[in-house]
Amino acid sequence: MHTSERIERTLERAIVLAQGAGAPPLLASAMHYAVFPGGHRIRPQLCLAVSLACGDKHPAAADAAAAAIELLHCASLVHDDLPCFDDADTRRGKPSVHARFGAPIAVLTGDALIVNAFETLAREASASPGRLGALLSIIAAAVGAPGGIVAGQAWESEVAIPLGDYQRAKTGALFVGSTLAGAAAAAVDPEPWRGLGEKLGEAYQVADDLRDVLCDASELGKPIGQDAARYRPNAAARLGVGGAKALLEELVKAAIDSIPPCPGRSELRKLMEAQTSQFFPKELSLVAA
Amino acid sequence: MHTSERIERTLERAIVLAQGAGAPPLLASAMHYAVFPGGHRIRPQLCLAVSLACGDKHPAAADAAAAAIELLHCASLVHDDLPCFDDADTRRGKPSVHARFGAPIAVLTGDALIVNAFETLAREASASPGRLGALLSIIAAAVGAPGGIVAGQAWESEVAIPLGDYQRAKTGALFVGSTLAGAAAAAVDPEPWRGLGEKLGEAYQVADDLRDVLCDASELGKPIGQDAARYRPNAAARLGVGGAKALLEELVKAAIDSIPPCPGRSELRKLMEAQTSQFFPKELSLVAA
Repeated sequence: MHTSERIERTLERAIVLAQGAGAPPLLASAMHYAVFPGGHRIRPQLCLAVSLACGDKHPAAADAAAAAIELLHCASLVHDDLPCFDDADTRRGKPSVHARFGAPIAVLTGDALIVNAFETLAREASASPGRLGALLSIIAAAVGAPGGIVAGQAWESEVAIPLGDYQRAKTGALFVGSTLAGAAAAAVDPEPWRGLGEKLGEAYQVADDLRDVLCDASELGKPIGQDAARYRPNAAARLGVGGAKALLEELVKAAIDSIPPCPGRSELRKLMEAQTSQFFPKELSLVAA
Repeated sequence: MHTSERIERTLERAIVLAQGAGAPPLLASAMHYAVFPGGHRIRPQLCLAVSLACGDKHPAAADAAAAAIELLHCASLVHDDLPCFDDADTRRGKPSVHARFGAPIAVLTGDALIVNAFETLAREASASPGRLGALLSIIAAAVGAPGGIVAGQAWESEVAIPLGDYQRAKTGALFVGSTLAGAAAAAVDPEPWRGLGEKLGEAYQVADDLRDVLCDASELGKPIGQDAARYRPNAAARLGVGGAKALLEELVKAAIDSIPPCPGRSELRKLMEAQTSQFFPKELSLVAA
């Protein structure tokens, strides 16, 4: 089965169960709306790619981890779009969850998706119970405090924002969680896979900064120019578009070079080259021309 | 060690770890503020009481479950108090988290506490890994969709609210989760313990309705008269104070009578009698006089 199909099937099952008997209709609709149709599913794809490169010895555990990571990512988008944060009316080319369902249901949708992520992990990984503790710890660390994506978002409420801590937590942590979880699902030592997650997270952040500066909102499916409007650090603003593009190339190369020895190393290198090529906004070719 | 000490120690360890290196200071402070000092810790006490009655064969797993349940309860209070829900300025006799730290940090504090709950479960139950899957499933079901406390809160956004579904989810679910988790931690079949959780949840709801009508805000530590102000169902409004008191007595008796056979049954009955006597607001004696 193709990795996309593995991811979508596990996500679909998770949401259908959350919509079971007794579910309040708006919450049930909003949970589906927040997860489908998805974006590029970059993080769960990364998790499965690492598991496959390591032999994919516990595929159900890998699918569980991948789906949990995507559910947590979707939860973070729903909460980040709330009026008290980015107040974004659009996401993935349609009204954001709070714009469509109101702020109360948006808060609860994020909450329910977080819980659903851990529930999915327990259920789908039940065939490999020995994997559960490690996966749960890795994924929770990538999301909560002190250094996960929730902590990353919380830095935006501080007067002084240490750029490294902020970006490592807000963007990097869930990429690191994805590579570590992929390795842990395959029952190999996850630590050698931290570098790949870190470098990809940094590269993705720079790519996101470039898109915020270069793209138009209809193409991106969410508001643009948000970093400048919100005084958030942006690599393209700091280094210029050319400098940010050079940094992105450097980070992508460092990410791919960091892939540790594993049975599927050369296939994973090729896959990462293809996937990271999508990080570069197509507007970059116009800028360079 | 007394059960209160077991609960507070596990909660303290959970929050200290969330406040580790790199944590954003406001989030770190708000997480502690939301959990300490606590209320009566009714749910984790119930979880430990059931585990003890069943032999407490895996005490660390029981402590893990109890702390996770309390962290999730605290998270729900932080989010329920938000301006888009109850807009409550006080909680446990001090400013609510959003009143003290602002809505953005309050949203993130709830999120981080939910994640921390599952992380605590994984870490503290690591000595009994065979217990983790069952505890995680029980606790997630008590909190998420379709029938957990988040779903209960989501019913308040619906036009038509089915009273049974609403109260079972909003209040009952976490009491049921507490009894089931206590039994599962002790490695006994949790299902016979569902009735105790259900009846205690109903009793607690009636007691809460009575307090909302009878007490003053300074004693309760949170705003009163909220049910009438928000058109929420309230048993004391529906049945009168005398009728609600009779219903509460009946539910407490049914709860205690539902305790299944177990090694510590008679001690648990006595403990439940003492603890449920605290459900009755002291204003009731004035009303009766």
